Amino acid sequence: MAQKYVTRAEDYSKWYNELVYRADLAEHSDVRGCMVIKPYGYAIWEKMRDILDAKFKETGHSNAYFPLFIPKSYLSKEASHIDGFAKECAVVTHYRLKNAEDGSGVIVDPDSKLEEELIVRPTSETIIWNSYKNWIQSYRDLPILINQWANVVRWEMKTRLFLRTTEFLWQEGHTAHATKQEAIAETEQMLDVYEDFAQNYMSMPVIKGRKTANERFAGADDTLCIEAMMQDGKALQAGTSHFLGQNFAKAFEVKFADKEGKLDYVWATSWGVSTRLMGALIMTHSDDEGLVLPPALAPIQVVAVPIYRTEEELTAISEKMKELSIKLKAKGISFKFDDDDNRRPGWKFAEYESKGVPVRVAMGPRDLENGKAEIARRDNKTKELVDFVGLEDYIEQLLADIQSNLLQKAMTFREENTREIDSYEEFKKEIDKGGFFLAHWDGTPETEERIKEETKATIRCIALDRKEEPGLCMVTGKPSAGRVIFAKAY
Amino acid sequence: MAQKYVTRAEDYSKWYNELVYRADLAEHSDVRGCMVIKPYGYAIWEKMRDILDAKFKETGHSNAYFPLFIPKSYLSKEASHIDGFAKECAVVTHYRLKNAEDGSGVIVDPDSKLEEELIVRPTSETIIWNSYKNWIQSYRDLPILINQWANVVRWEMKTRLFLRTTEFLWQEGHTAHATKQEAIAETEQMLDVYEDFAQNYMSMPVIKGRKTANERFAGADDTLCIEAMMQDGKALQAGTSHFLGQNFAKAFEVKFADKEGKLDYVWATSWGVSTRLMGALIMTHSDDEGLVLPPALAPIQVVAVPIYRTEEELTAISEKMKELSIKLKAKGISFKFDDDDNRRPGWKFAEYESKGVPVRVAMGPRDLENGKAEIARRDNKTKELVDFVGLEDYIEQLLADIQSNLLQKAMTFREENTREIDSYEEFKKEIDKGGFFLAHWDGTPETEERIKEETKATIRCIALDRKEEPGLCMVTGKPSAGRVIFAKAY
Repeated sequence: MAQKYVTRAEDYSKWYNELVYRADLAEHSDVRGCMVIKPYGYAIWEKMRDILDAKFKETGHSNAYFPLFIPKSYLSKEASHIDGFAKECAVVTHYRLKNAEDGSGVIVDPDSKLEEELIVRPTSETIIWNSYKNWIQSYRDLPILINQWANVVRWEMKTRLFLRTTEFLWQEGHTAHATKQEAIAETEQMLDVYEDFAQNYMSMPVIKGRKTANERFAGADDTLCIEAMMQDGKALQAGTSHFLGQNFAKAFEVKFADKEGKLDYVWATSWGVSTRLMGALIMTHSDDEGLVLPPALAPIQVVAVPIYRTEEELTAISEKMKELSIKLKAKGISFKFDDDDNRRPGWKFAEYESKGVPVRVAMGPRDLENGKAEIARRDNKTKELVDFVGLEDYIEQLLADIQSNLLQKAMTFREENTREIDSYEEFKKEIDKGGFFLAHWDGTPETEERIKEETKATIRCIALDRKEEPGLCMVTGKPSAGRVIFAKAY
Repeated sequence: MAQKYVTRAEDYSKWYNELVYRADLAEHSDVRGCMVIKPYGYAIWEKMRDILDAKFKETGHSNAYFPLFIPKSYLSKEASHIDGFAKECAVVTHYRLKNAEDGSGVIVDPDSKLEEELIVRPTSETIIWNSYKNWIQSYRDLPILINQWANVVRWEMKTRLFLRTTEFLWQEGHTAHATKQEAIAETEQMLDVYEDFAQNYMSMPVIKGRKTANERFAGADDTLCIEAMMQDGKALQAGTSHFLGQNFAKAFEVKFADKEGKLDYVWATSWGVSTRLMGALIMTHSDDEGLVLPPALAPIQVVAVPIYRTEEELTAISEKMKELSIKLKAKGISFKFDDDDNRRPGWKFAEYESKGVPVRVAMGPRDLENGKAEIARRDNKTKELVDFVGLEDYIEQLLADIQSNLLQKAMTFREENTREIDSYEEFKKEIDKGGFFLAHWDGTPETEERIKEETKATIRCIALDRKEEPGLCMVTGKPSAGRVIFAKAY
């Protein structure tokens, strides 16, 4: 661990990039904009996926799988959808390669040109509604509550690991309903699922809100979101849930007969979170020593490092650790005993610190004699000597403490970096320092655009629980019904 | 259920296609060769995935994720790999669409042409070994034991749901080792994992064997496989495990320093199973009434249907079913109580029969009075009146019986349809009847090719446990060391 890493204060962006490599989470591939998610990073993503998947199933959803490719013409069917998504896409134009005649390798066979190009899905509304069309005839076929775990591709010019990559992994829920109210309730329910996941598993506080028309999903009547604050004060949109109205049903001619036999278009929602959550997780908690993980998402929750000189010492410590392992396992706590003889304890300490393992147990010959172990918390770096008897209960409680401490800390940070602001002059001066700014806005896209152009800040959302507070737009002085949240964002 | 379905005897192929729709497993999408896996089909695939995933982890593997796209030039790096895979591929040539000037929709932006085309992965050896190159310096970095769950694309001209689709889901293990022996042991271990899964979860007997040079994976030194027999006597390759030698290490220049500091190329394996297993599962057990599922893979293991006229009867039955539900849940048995008032019991019986639910519980007022329930097995269609007291134990045992009965039945079927054959004349007459033919072969690709051309039968494998039995090739009369398995195959 001789390598010197940059700190958050020195260069936040570089700190992030270094951390992703240092904790062995992911790396850039040679394919422009695509990442390799390494085993440790993928193990965290798997935990996220499994927890979310269970919540989707609890709320009545099933998984299914739709094609990777979307015929180009489908994207044109929903008018506003196309403006949002039919831009930077990977386009499949041919289906065969052949050997070059000069033996130089393979070339695309010109005879294999597709009649209609296929787009690698940037999101699946169109291909899915094209199927739903055949699945829905009557109210008895509704609701359809389907989720898909998949890879999607959006051709990004500027990419960052997890935060913005050309290919990423995500889940996309696509539901169909007989009534508007039911679809709106679904949109809200899934936002609540995301909030619950963010706060109680990621220990990441989020604000539930509504996007402005400008920031809405292409094809949605309403976009709800959860917004989080990163440690540099920037906002990160961590999940969205869209009420799609009847837009896709109309685009794909999906009607159903109600109980009276009357035909109407179907109501829709879609909602998703992606591997972007990995970036949010990293930037919410981690510090200059590396990753900090909430226990609920840590692939290894407890690591034990033996400190010894002789074989006998190692054997004695190993026995104790085996005991501990069994007791922790019974509690569903994941545990790793690292007795690799090729690495010194100091190296291991730094390694697991980098990787964000929440609790470290160290035991040396003297600890063994005294019936104690040294317990170190990753989150606040405190250490304590704890009796070996009952250690499993101590650790269980400690993991719960760490989980809630991380949430509390992030909550406090967000509060300290959220302020009301009424002067646009001050706003322009302050916005670069980061944080959430609660300001009055006149509700027009023009003012929103102007602020974005002049400051690069956007309206992150109109909080669902904002207080009604009549005021005057900080830019135009026109009336406003309440404050909205401005911030610079990832 | 007025619809009349074709039987296996009438038209096996049509029976299969109808069954996939009838059981609501999957359907063709409008994208040529790509399928939609519907919720019920996906639920079975999820069970397969979760069981296999646990087995991969038990044997020390971790999951990771590599890019969907492979630069065209990578495919050329391994000489025999390119012949096998750089043929029917989806080729991405552009990365942007734009609005057509005449307003007719979107067109591919000619300015967005990629310098080097990207291939949608048909398999990931090349992109993965391009990463491993950077991960491996010394023996300390080995072994690498990684698996990936992903979608892959092979442009197929003739497709069938699950069995052969342009896009399919699979897992691909890619491991790197310091020694040849270790890589071979890994290849064999993973074949054993597949065999265990096929036999003990799918109730599908398989023969472990070795592919001939002709049928080997493109880039492998040795391909091991599991071969199953479908009910029409055709063979289905259900999984493969490849010893890749140093071929990919050489193609991507991946060397490691051993303990003495000597450099050598790394040894590799890869192994995979896909959604094709769904096809194998269907064709191994199902009958003219629909899907038959082994309990270990059934999304619903037990379904209960109430038979009633009055509300009071339904209430009384529902209470009993609630009791049963709790007891079955405690045993980890999945249970559905279908009290949908819009459907009659007969309709429900047929529906769950179609879907292969292993055990059906029916209860009417008289059963209730007598403290009994009618228990129907899906596999052999027997019915029995069973005491309600202790019913959960009865069902638990029944599920185990069904699981082993299905395996036994399939095993018997395979035995009855496997025969030794010594005359090529007879072989040519018999081969169309289906089944496995054990015949002597002179070991040359020429003879293998000739048999394939003349009969469409291929050598499925050389069984790993075949007895050494010198003989004479049925075609050329040249010497042979033992019999190999011929069959027509999916």
